[in-house]
Parts: sequence; C-alpha cells; structure tokens
Amino acid sequence: MKFARIGEPGAERPIALDNEGRAFDISSTTPDINGAFLAADGIAAVRAGLAAGSYPELGWSLAAGEAFSAAPTGERIGSPVARPGNVICIGMNYAAHARESGAEPPTIPVVFLKPANTVAGPFDPAPIPPSAQKYDWEVELGIVIGAHAKYLPSAEAAKDVIAGLLIANDLSEREYQIPGAAGQWTKGKSLPQSTPLGPFLVPADEIDGHNLGCRSWINGEIRQDSSTADFIFDLPTVVHHLSQYMALEPGDVILTGTPEGVALSGRFPYLAEGDVGEFEIQQLGRQRQVFFREQVNA
Amino acid sequence: MKFARIGEPGAERPIALDNEGRAFDISSTTPDINGAFLAADGIAAVRAGLAAGSYPELGWSLAAGEAFSAAPTGERIGSPVARPGNVICIGMNYAAHARESGAEPPTIPVVFLKPANTVAGPFDPAPIPPSAQKYDWEVELGIVIGAHAKYLPSAEAAKDVIAGLLIANDLSEREYQIPGAAGQWTKGKSLPQSTPLGPFLVPADEIDGHNLGCRSWINGEIRQDSSTADFIFDLPTVVHHLSQYMALEPGDVILTGTPEGVALSGRFPYLAEGDVGEFEIQQLGRQRQVFFREQVNA
Repeated sequence: MKFARIGEPGAERPIALDNEGRAFDISSTTPDINGAFLAADGIAAVRAGLAAGSYPELGWSLAAGEAFSAAPTGERIGSPVARPGNVICIGMNYAAHARESGAEPPTIPVVFLKPANTVAGPFDPAPIPPSAQKYDWEVELGIVIGAHAKYLPSAEAAKDVIAGLLIANDLSEREYQIPGAAGQWTKGKSLPQSTPLGPFLVPADEIDGHNLGCRSWINGEIRQDSSTADFIFDLPTVVHHLSQYMALEPGDVILTGTPEGVALSGRFPYLAEGDVGEFEIQQLGRQRQVFFREQVNA
Repeated sequence: MKFARIGEPGAERPIALDNEGRAFDISSTTPDINGAFLAADGIAAVRAGLAAGSYPELGWSLAAGEAFSAAPTGERIGSPVARPGNVICIGMNYAAHARESGAEPPTIPVVFLKPANTVAGPFDPAPIPPSAQKYDWEVELGIVIGAHAKYLPSAEAAKDVIAGLLIANDLSEREYQIPGAAGQWTKGKSLPQSTPLGPFLVPADEIDGHNLGCRSWINGEIRQDSSTADFIFDLPTVVHHLSQYMALEPGDVILTGTPEGVALSGRFPYLAEGDVGEFEIQQLGRQRQVFFREQVNA
C-alpha cells in the first residue's frame, strides 16, 4: 500500500495505491493525508478499507518502478503529506558525504530545520533562486511522524511513532548555507519550494528503511548512488535523539541526511536553468524536477 | 490599540484593547489573530470597529504599565498570535551580546529557526527540560508578518509587510545549542514551550520599534537592560534580508535577537526550578514565567 495526493497545490485529494498499483479514492476515510489522519490510526483504517473493497477505484494503476510525472489522468501529483508542522533535518548522516563536504563524520546527529512552507510536489517545476550560484540537490529518505513524542525513553520506543517513509529532495544553496557569521545553515536551506516530497508515503510496517538504494541523476548522468545501509544513525536513533530536544508532532517530516555525490563535492556543476533532476529511493518512487531560474518580479 | 488572545491553549479568543486599555471582544470581525486576519487587513478593520463602537466591552481594562499575569477575569492570556507557520530568529543582533557569547558582531544577519510548536503564552509555567543544565533566557523584540513576501527589493519595501510587534522570550539550552558537530544551534532552540510570546500584539503603525527599553529580571534581579536602539540590523533590514532566503507568510514571527545579560555570559546562574523570570519591552508589555523542572514521564 502507498499513499499519494493528487490535485493542484493546496487542493490535493488523498488516494491510496494497493499492492497491484491500482489507485483508489480514500476521501470517505479522510479529507487529507495529514497529522490528524496519521494520529488517528488512519493507515490501518485505509488498509482495512482496501481489503474490504470499500473505496471507489480511480480507473488507473502504476506498475512498480514505472516512470511517471503526473497521474495517468494528467493531474498533478503533490507531496504525499499535507504541509507539516515542522521539517526537521539531519546533517551529514552518511560518512562519505560528510567527508566530501569537508567535515569529519559526526558522533551525534547534526540537526537543523527547514521552513515547512518549502514543501513542494515531486514533479513541480523547481525554481533556482534569482541570485543563487550554488544550488544543489540532496536525495534523502524522509520519516513521517505519526504520534506526539517528546523525551522518548529509547530508540525502540521511537519505532512506534514512525508512521511511514517517503523520498525527499533537500535543495540547498551552498553559498547561502555555509559562509557568513556563526555558520548557521538556515539561509541555504529555506528557499521557496526547496523541499520536494514524494510521490509516495509508504507505511512504516511495509518497508525496511535501512537497506534502500538511493540515487540521483542530473540530465541523465548519475550523481548520488548509495544506500541507506550506510546511515551513521539509523531511523529510530534519529527519532529518539530528536525527541530529547523538541516535541515531535503527527505529520512532521524528518529528512535523514544525504549520501555523497552532490555538487558541493566539487565533482559536479551546480544546478542551472533547464537541468532535469531525478531522485529515487527504492520502493519510495522517483521524483523528477525541471529547474528554472526564478525572476524576482515573477 | 493592542491585540491579545485569552483562553486555554488552542482555544484562545481574540480581544482588542483600546487606547484607554479597555478590553473588547472582536470575534465578530475574526475568530482569531492569525495570518488570514492580518493578510486581510484585519488590523484596520478592528481599528474602525473600535472607533465605531461596534464591539462588546468585556468589562475590564488594563492601565498602561500595569503588572498582571492573567486577564482580570482570571482567564489565561495566550500568545497574541495563533501558531505561526514559521518562527524565524536573528542571532547576535546586539553587539554587546555577541561579545558576551564569545563572538564578533556579525556583518550580515545570522539566521536560524525555531519549531513553530515552541510558542507558549507569556504567563504559562515554563518547563526546564528534564536533563537541561544550561537553560537560559533571551528577551527579544518580535515582528509579526502581515503579507506574503519573497525577494523584497529593499528595506523600504519590507516596512509594508510588518503587521505588528510583540515581546518574546527565546528560551535556549546552551549545552544543547553550542557544542556538537557542525555547530547548528537547533537542538538548543527547539525545546517544548521555549518561545513565550506576548501578552500584546501592537500594530506596526502605532509604535517605533527602534527605541524601546528591553529588560529582564530573574527573581527580581535585573539581568538584561538595553534598548532596541542598539540593534545592529534594524527591523526593515532584517525582513528584507530574510525575504531573500525564504518566503515569508502572514502570521510568521521573527525574533530579532537579544541584548547582553544572559546566563551564557558567565555572570549569572542558569535557570533553576522555582525561578521567576520577568521580561519586558516598553509599550509591548511584560511576561512572567515560573520555571519548573519537567519530568520525563509527566
């Protein structure tokens, strides 16, 4: 089972895909895939509804691994979760990426935030900020939180608050991120539409997040090619750690870091107008973004 | 005119105080003081409504400068704005505070984020995190944004998107904030209820934010005693700068930095169970928080 949201930005409707890839309208169970749905055990309700044949079929299906950038009806595919309360990020969670960024691998998770209004759809045209010279990609595994959580006692307990997984792109402007006083990354991590999510949300109990191939391509050339098996900190460890420092809420999204192969390494050019980026994590789908230079007065 | 919100957390009702401090129920104009209200020019609508005598009086008033920690009816006073989309912060915006923190004053604004769910009421009991040893106060002038804004052309243009001002406390855990890999401050700036706001939102056209006394006391002893006249970056400059890096939205809150006199300086002890903190900015009111040690299993 996978969840997705289709429709124009801010007006997406929730759908579910069954294990054969057939699409169903689940709006009789929930108006949206959001924190309230996840907290109310909505995933189990939809699973039961699919098994019972309760939902109207949309008349189309997606084969596993099939490339697409819109629903077969032509409708836009949005982020598979509604705008989160918070987007929380782990930095340098793959040892090789830490080294290409000029840093030693961290011994405790590095944490930063992205504004929640950076969330975009996985196939939306992607703006390069007007003055940006170093706009970069970061394919990442994302966690979607399913329950309120603070001061969790253990990584084991953290497993219970992970509702599902998705693929994310943590678009980052390196000139804004790294220079400047006090080294806070926020300015490079907050740009409009810099967090494409999805296309799918996969329930946590249907996927092992710790052994998924994780790749990116720019204009068809491979950039990142790694596996979440190379995490420094695994998913429950990340959630347990974060819960010591902030109150996690249903619908929150946690991006778990990116593997090596970004432009910051110096091995590849930064993103330019007309570039086509593709970003894929096994079992979670593939994003595709066409980059364009945003105009200030657009 | 001042705005406030009274009632239990998540169920606050909007009120306005006229220039004599008399309280009025403005719920006939808006259900809440939030981004939608501000974007729809709600401040002007309430001003007109007060002038026309359209609102029911609540039967009480607050004299200017009067100390209080609840409405005279005994009701809780909440944050004067509903949960923002984003809480954006400027670090080290007073030269003397930068130096007490061991840093040179920045030449461009330092930016970081707090999770929006850290917002608390100005008189709510304030939890010290279970394991925190270095919980610290930071009185700050806060900006509330009134319109969508990105890539603003000038500081002059930024003035138009500032809806109002409020007082904030940017509670910070220094051990979590400063050590650790890569120096991201997030873990020390995200703790539950670490952003008390209010009691009042004052419309931007009724106050000059650049010459306001700004003070804090712990257990009645003065700690911070400064003025927003000492800003390194003034309010329009901050908003203009931020808009180059993120899409600002109505209802967003920007904390503009704290003056010297925090515990991080080494001159004062960190917060402890039972401490009473008071935080005041001229014309924006005074907060009062009684600190307690949060229990993990509370």
